[in-house]
Amino acid sequence: MTADPKPLPPGSTIGILGGGQLGRMLAMAAARLGLKCHIYAPAGDNPAFDVAAACSEGAWDDEAALARFAAACDVVTYEFENVPYATIAAVERDSPAFPPGRALGISQDRLSEKRFAKTVGFVPASISWSKDLDSVVKAAEMFGFPGILKTRRLGYDGKGQARVANEEELRKAWHAMGGEDLIYESFVDFEHEISVIAARGRDGKMVAYDIGENVHRSGILHTTRVPARIAPITGKKARDATFRMLKALDYVGVIGVELFVVGEFGAERLVFNEFAPRVHNSGHWTIDACACSQFEQHIRAVAGWPLGDPSRHSDAVMENLIGGDVEGWQTRAPDRGECVHIYGKAEARRGRKMGHVTRLARRGI
Amino acid sequence: MTADPKPLPPGSTIGILGGGQLGRMLAMAAARLGLKCHIYAPAGDNPAFDVAAACSEGAWDDEAALARFAAACDVVTYEFENVPYATIAAVERDSPAFPPGRALGISQDRLSEKRFAKTVGFVPASISWSKDLDSVVKAAEMFGFPGILKTRRLGYDGKGQARVANEEELRKAWHAMGGEDLIYESFVDFEHEISVIAARGRDGKMVAYDIGENVHRSGILHTTRVPARIAPITGKKARDATFRMLKALDYVGVIGVELFVVGEFGAERLVFNEFAPRVHNSGHWTIDACACSQFEQHIRAVAGWPLGDPSRHSDAVMENLIGGDVEGWQTRAPDRGECVHIYGKAEARRGRKMGHVTRLARRGI
Repeated sequence: MTADPKPLPPGSTIGILGGGQLGRMLAMAAARLGLKCHIYAPAGDNPAFDVAAACSEGAWDDEAALARFAAACDVVTYEFENVPYATIAAVERDSPAFPPGRALGISQDRLSEKRFAKTVGFVPASISWSKDLDSVVKAAEMFGFPGILKTRRLGYDGKGQARVANEEELRKAWHAMGGEDLIYESFVDFEHEISVIAARGRDGKMVAYDIGENVHRSGILHTTRVPARIAPITGKKARDATFRMLKALDYVGVIGVELFVVGEFGAERLVFNEFAPRVHNSGHWTIDACACSQFEQHIRAVAGWPLGDPSRHSDAVMENLIGGDVEGWQTRAPDRGECVHIYGKAEARRGRKMGHVTRLARRGI
Repeated sequence: MTADPKPLPPGSTIGILGGGQLGRMLAMAAARLGLKCHIYAPAGDNPAFDVAAACSEGAWDDEAALARFAAACDVVTYEFENVPYATIAAVERDSPAFPPGRALGISQDRLSEKRFAKTVGFVPASISWSKDLDSVVKAAEMFGFPGILKTRRLGYDGKGQARVANEEELRKAWHAMGGEDLIYESFVDFEHEISVIAARGRDGKMVAYDIGENVHRSGILHTTRVPARIAPITGKKARDATFRMLKALDYVGVIGVELFVVGEFGAERLVFNEFAPRVHNSGHWTIDACACSQFEQHIRAVAGWPLGDPSRHSDAVMENLIGGDVEGWQTRAPDRGECVHIYGKAEARRGRKMGHVTRLARRGI
C-alpha cells in the first residue's frame, strides 16, 4: 500500500468492496464530488451496482478478479466489515486501501476488539472467553445472569448472538452455537444506547457528528435520534475516546462506535459495545441533517480530501424500514421534514434493511 | 401515451432524455427512492451515465434506438428543453412521457412562450417579432433602447442573444444572427431576478419552493439566494401565476419560471422572462436546504408518487462553478454549511457548468 497524500481529483475512481446499501450511498456521495465508483461484490442482489460507473462481480477469494479490480481503482474502501482480511490484503497489492486493514482485523474479533478498546480508554462490558464451557459458566456466575453468548467472529445485526438467563440456557446455547470461539458477555442494564460517528482524514484531522441515540429491536437498529438525551460531558468522553481510537489505528475514513450509557450513582457511565470500521446505520441521519453526510465524509477521507462540515442544521429521527416496512411509500404523501430513502433491493425479506426514513425538525439545542 | 395513474413501485425504471448534470442529479434522486434510471443521450461527455443503472447512446432522431429505449422504461422524462419535439413524440409511442410535450413545444419558441404566459396572467416584456427588419427597428424605437435581440428557438445560458444599444447595433446584430426568426425584446430595468421552482403531480397537486433570487453573469446563472429579497405579496403573485401555468398545461413534473422584479411607484411589478419545463439551475439549493429536492420532486411527479415536502430548513446561497471555478476543491476544506457538488464532466471548458456550491445558514425568516 502506498499512502499517497495527494488528494484524488474529480474523475478518479474509488473502489468499494461490497454492493449493499452502504456501498450504494457511498457511491452516491462520491458522485456528488465528481468521483467515479467501481463496486466489487459477489454475485447476488447488489443495489450499489445501479448507481456506480463500473461494477465487478467476483468472489471474496478470487485473487485474479480482485487484482483486476484494484488495478482499475485509485483507492479502495469497503462497506462491509466482514470482508475477509485476506481480500483487503490482496487488494492492497495493487491499490491503497482505507480504512487500514488492522482496524478491520480488530473489529472482526470481538475479543481483540474489546481488548483494543480498553487501550484507548473505553470500558467494555465484562466478558469471558474460553474453549472450556465450565470456565465460561464460572465467569457467568461471577458476572451474573442474564448475559449474551456471542460468536467471536462474523456477527452483525444481532446475528451470532443468544441471550441467556441462567446456567441451563447458557449450556444449551453453547452447544447450539457450536461450542467454539464463543464469548460470554455480561448484560449491560443501560439507559441509552448511543453511537459516535467520527472520521479521520489522510491528513490526520478528525471530526465527529453529534451523538445519536439508538433503539434496537430484535438485535436490529430501529431508530436513531439526534441529539441523544445524554449529559454534555458524557458526549465529550465518548468523542474523546473515539478520537484516541482513530489515532491509535492511524485510521482513515468514517468509524461507528456503539456505546451503552449506564446510570450510576446519579451520573452516567459509558460501556463500550463495539465499533464498525465503516459508515454506520446510526449515521444515516447525516444525509439529511448535515451539510456533509457520513458517506461524503468517508469518501473525502479515503480520497485524501479535507474533511467536510459535520455540524447539524436540524434535529433528526432516523427510522429503518425493515422487511415489509418498505411497502407502500410510493402512495404515501411525505409529512413535513420527512426524507424517504429506499435501497432498491429486489426482495423484502424479513429482517432485511430495505430503506430508512429521516424526519427533520427545527434544531432545538 | 397512456397516463397510468398508478404510482410506479421501487425497482421501476425512469427513462431520462439527456445525459448532463440535470440528468445526473435526477438519477441520484431517483436512486434515493429505489427507482432505477435509464439515460438516453447522444454520444459525448454524459456525466449522468456514471450514476445510472442503464445507458443508451443514440441520436435524437434515431427512431429505432428511441423505441428500444422507451420500451425499456416505465416512464420517460427529459432534462434538456432543447430535446427535439419529434423525439418526445417518438418516445411517447412506447412509454408515457412527462412533462407533456405541449409544455416543451411552447418553451422552445420564445414567441409562443410569451403569448402563453400572458394567458395565465404573467406580463412579459414588450417584444416584437417580424421577418422585416424595418418593422423591428420601428418597434425598438417605440419600446426604447437598449434591448435584446434573441433567436426565437434554441437559446439557453445567454446563447442566441445580443444586447443592442441603438439602431445601428440592432441592424448589425440582425444580420450577424441570420436575420430570420429573431425577436426584439425591450430591456427590463429590474431590481431583482427571481425564479419560481414549482411542481405538479400526476394527481394534480401542486407545490412551490420558496422563491430564489438570481444573479446572472455573462448570461449564465451565477448565484441563487433564498429567501429572495421581495415583498411577500410579490412572491404570492409569482407562485399563483405559476400554478395557473401548471394547470393550463396539465403539467406533470418540476417547472422553473424566471421573472424580473421591477420597482414601480414604490411597489414591485413582475415581468415574465421565460420558463423551463424541467428541473432548473436556480433550484439546485433545494438539494441541501429542503427535505425533498427539486430533483426528487420531479421524479415523484413523473413516477406518479405524491409530491414531497418543499419547505426549507435553512437559508441558502447557491453558486455555480463555471469552467475553471471547479478546480482545487479537492484541496480546500469546506466552510461551515458548505455543500460541494461536482458534476464529473471530463473537460472544464469556459462557460461550462462544472458544479455548484450551496452555502447553508440558519433560517432567518
